[in-house]
Amino acid sequence: MANIPSGIPEKTIERLSEYRRTLLSCSKRGITHIFSHVLAGIHGITAVQVRRDLMLIGFSSDTKKGYDVQILIEYISRILDSETPINIAILGMGHLGQAITKYFNSKGLKLKITAAFDVDPEKIGREIDGVPCYHMNNFEQKAEELDLSMVVVSSPTKVAPSLVVPIINAGIRGVLNFTSTPLNFPQGIVVENYDITTLLEKVAYFVKENDANA
Amino acid sequence: MANIPSGIPEKTIERLSEYRRTLLSCSKRGITHIFSHVLAGIHGITAVQVRRDLMLIGFSSDTKKGYDVQILIEYISRILDSETPINIAILGMGHLGQAITKYFNSKGLKLKITAAFDVDPEKIGREIDGVPCYHMNNFEQKAEELDLSMVVVSSPTKVAPSLVVPIINAGIRGVLNFTSTPLNFPQGIVVENYDITTLLEKVAYFVKENDANA
Repeated sequence: MANIPSGIPEKTIERLSEYRRTLLSCSKRGITHIFSHVLAGIHGITAVQVRRDLMLIGFSSDTKKGYDVQILIEYISRILDSETPINIAILGMGHLGQAITKYFNSKGLKLKITAAFDVDPEKIGREIDGVPCYHMNNFEQKAEELDLSMVVVSSPTKVAPSLVVPIINAGIRGVLNFTSTPLNFPQGIVVENYDITTLLEKVAYFVKENDANA
Repeated sequence: MANIPSGIPEKTIERLSEYRRTLLSCSKRGITHIFSHVLAGIHGITAVQVRRDLMLIGFSSDTKKGYDVQILIEYISRILDSETPINIAILGMGHLGQAITKYFNSKGLKLKITAAFDVDPEKIGREIDGVPCYHMNNFEQKAEELDLSMVVVSSPTKVAPSLVVPIINAGIRGVLNFTSTPLNFPQGIVVENYDITTLLEKVAYFVKENDANA
């Protein structure tokens, strides 16, 4: 991994993940090459942005035929993917947890949701969408057994703060938190707080801005 | 609304939404004032960032006692909220659609999910979490009747592209798309594409980066 550039901006990482998903779908449909402006059009951005992102990861293309889809997929994967598999646990197997599991594990990605935790007796001991559901009390022990390194927090918001200590104790390295309580962790643990309310309020704000400028 | 600054960066809008949620929860607990570094700590950012965001919206505070919680809530609301209510529809009332509805409508916000659309006969004609579910075929007509101005796309990914034309025809102004197909709309329609896979891949990447720098 020595020659992989670091310090890539967060937004570029997001777009690389999105490009790869598009490229994988192109590849499935037998498309071997794609121009930067086509890739840009699919993602609603400019070709300049696409080229800038790919330059940041040191990728340049045969401009006559466009980017080689397969090579670009491999290149992006080398940036994004870990060499070891990453096992993810869902903390809170309600509607959101189940939606994420179902959606995510159908993709055949390197990241895999391999366990779920809840306190609902109807769920514990069962498999839900192919993922075993354990009692939250056993989280720390199971995290070690199952080599879990990331968690998705999709519990009720009230419960979320009580999950911080178990997450730290379990040696979890990355947290994606969907509740509306921002969670803080010591350095060394990556956390992304994504409250869906914020996303909706943001769209609503830009709708309002559009109206004001119309 | 004449004196509300426009051109506020997207990230600031996100943070304002997050600050407000924290402030509302402070207010509920009887907290009347809050210092910028306390607000910053809760959100895992610096006090400088908080002050910069609030300066951008023209808010300055009594620094001796900190920010007045109630006044700051009103100030942020003036920036974020629309004067008219915004009705949101869920397109795809599966696990994700239901999770968003349940979570969002319990908050008592100005934005409200008032309708859902699906093609599952078991759901159509029923109320789910207090929201009536209609057949997707009736979307354009219902959108006018119910004054819908935003949609959340939580349908299966395959279905998402077929929703673009109905969304345009229905006069929808803002779209929050959770499927893994990026959707493009003509100018004047705000769209945010939020694929949960991207969020997880981003966290995984920064975990890897952390390991490399450790």
